[in-house]
Amino acid sequence: MKDEGARPARPILPRVCIIGLGLMGGSLALALRRCGVAGHIVGCGRPALLARAQELGAIDSGAVDAGAAVAGSDFVFLCVPVETSIALLAKIAPHLPERALVSDVGSTKQAFAAAAREIFGASAGERVLPGHPLAGRELSGLEHASADLFANCLWVLTPIAGAAPGPLPGASNANLNAEPAELTAAQRSLRMALAAIGARVLFSTPGEHDRTVAYTSHLPQMLSSALALTLERVFGGGNPALEIHAGGLRSMLRLAASDPAMWEQIGASNRENICAALEGMESELRGLRESLGGARFRAKFERAREFAKLLKS
Amino acid sequence: MKDEGARPARPILPRVCIIGLGLMGGSLALALRRCGVAGHIVGCGRPALLARAQELGAIDSGAVDAGAAVAGSDFVFLCVPVETSIALLAKIAPHLPERALVSDVGSTKQAFAAAAREIFGASAGERVLPGHPLAGRELSGLEHASADLFANCLWVLTPIAGAAPGPLPGASNANLNAEPAELTAAQRSLRMALAAIGARVLFSTPGEHDRTVAYTSHLPQMLSSALALTLERVFGGGNPALEIHAGGLRSMLRLAASDPAMWEQIGASNRENICAALEGMESELRGLRESLGGARFRAKFERAREFAKLLKS
Repeated sequence: MKDEGARPARPILPRVCIIGLGLMGGSLALALRRCGVAGHIVGCGRPALLARAQELGAIDSGAVDAGAAVAGSDFVFLCVPVETSIALLAKIAPHLPERALVSDVGSTKQAFAAAAREIFGASAGERVLPGHPLAGRELSGLEHASADLFANCLWVLTPIAGAAPGPLPGASNANLNAEPAELTAAQRSLRMALAAIGARVLFSTPGEHDRTVAYTSHLPQMLSSALALTLERVFGGGNPALEIHAGGLRSMLRLAASDPAMWEQIGASNRENICAALEGMESELRGLRESLGGARFRAKFERAREFAKLLKS
Repeated sequence: MKDEGARPARPILPRVCIIGLGLMGGSLALALRRCGVAGHIVGCGRPALLARAQELGAIDSGAVDAGAAVAGSDFVFLCVPVETSIALLAKIAPHLPERALVSDVGSTKQAFAAAAREIFGASAGERVLPGHPLAGRELSGLEHASADLFANCLWVLTPIAGAAPGPLPGASNANLNAEPAELTAAQRSLRMALAAIGARVLFSTPGEHDRTVAYTSHLPQMLSSALALTLERVFGGGNPALEIHAGGLRSMLRLAASDPAMWEQIGASNRENICAALEGMESELRGLRESLGGARFRAKFERAREFAKLLKS
């Protein structure tokens, strides 16, 4: 690819392949396109989706087969639910150019990192840089895609440690904001491109990431869905008494509208951490129930309020 | 009171007394004042609060003593936490004019209705009309008061049935929107005044109200506070890993900022209903945990999504 007149320089991501053109993949394509950091964007998905993505100006070309789609690419993004991305990684591996960097947008990182290690062995840390944009998920599908989805969104990158075979259990990463020294040139380009589309990039380890999101993302989701189930069991759907509710309930039920298929995969791929988070939550609920309306109850509410304030600031 | 020149008619609420000048009482005073349905507004609270409320134009006059404050009033609003309102009702009873109608803004209604029956006997249904505006509660205090707080806010009125000694257990009120035929003229005026400040008035029974809000208001609050406690227990306050979170967590923690003193009283006054709601919730969380990532798990998520959609529309 050569410079064309006014174009000042080679794009940060010369040839990008985006596999999966739903909310995430579609938004990523639109965002990369808008800020001009991608040269050519190849999309991969079902024919109807490819046609629509081209109509929206999200991609330059398309392929239905993932192996064909990644041929010649410098950067490949797997924008599919987490278990699907593991299957796809194995499928595209033989077709990937040696120089290509693969990333993903899956909600958990340990299983994906482990699969990368299995497929790429010692070079997994170079060839794959797992990622997780914490962007709104109650909507799904290309029709909801937006170039703005990642504006000010947290995007966690979890480099695969070559030496460490697994996560660092319980390790707290004090350098969450620092860029690891060992990033390759392609990985630094990826980081720059994500910053260019407005994301706030943080680094973590796959293990720390999965443990943390079990509490900060998966647990809130479980609560919202379980709240809906509790209300449904007691009131059924059309009970007029349910009119007696306010904005607090609606905001607590917002996440319950999320895609069940995606959450089935998240649940399966982060089972132990989510179980621990749910057990912790069940225990706190029991604690509130057993102290209801007493001084201990009030002390708990005080502590909860302090914590909520802290996270807000 | 006589008509004054341009003033077309006697105000709907000629002389109002508002006891408690926090977020609710202050907002009610400002709202009644702005839409011109109140004649004279007497405030009751600590001297500094009375001074500030007069400065804000919320009240016309003030009294520190609740008995003195209600003298000569047509309408009395108890705008204090639910247990405090029960104590106040007993205190003001000997000082209330025969014609005065008392209402409140407490978050539960059975205990208040029972206290009214004890104090006023057979005339409780006429002299007291319990109420509950479901307005935002994470903020508190006169400084956050606003004439707009009740705009489009649900305001539940729960008439005290003269004959029935207690709530109607499990009864579903099919006429939630209908005005009960037996309202007195003063009660109809109250309803009109609430509509005038923008509230959507619904009728329920104290029992149905308390059971419903245990699920639609108190349970969401418990979840938000317990979520904060769970995160605090695992991460502590200043853990950098907590940076890995998105808007979903912040919206689930919003209610945790609510006033612990108010919730201590709500917990105590609606103990059985809240316990049942918490037990139901704990059971749903256990169900999700035990089916995590499987087909049953997905089916639960589908059901939760359907319910959440229903409530939204």
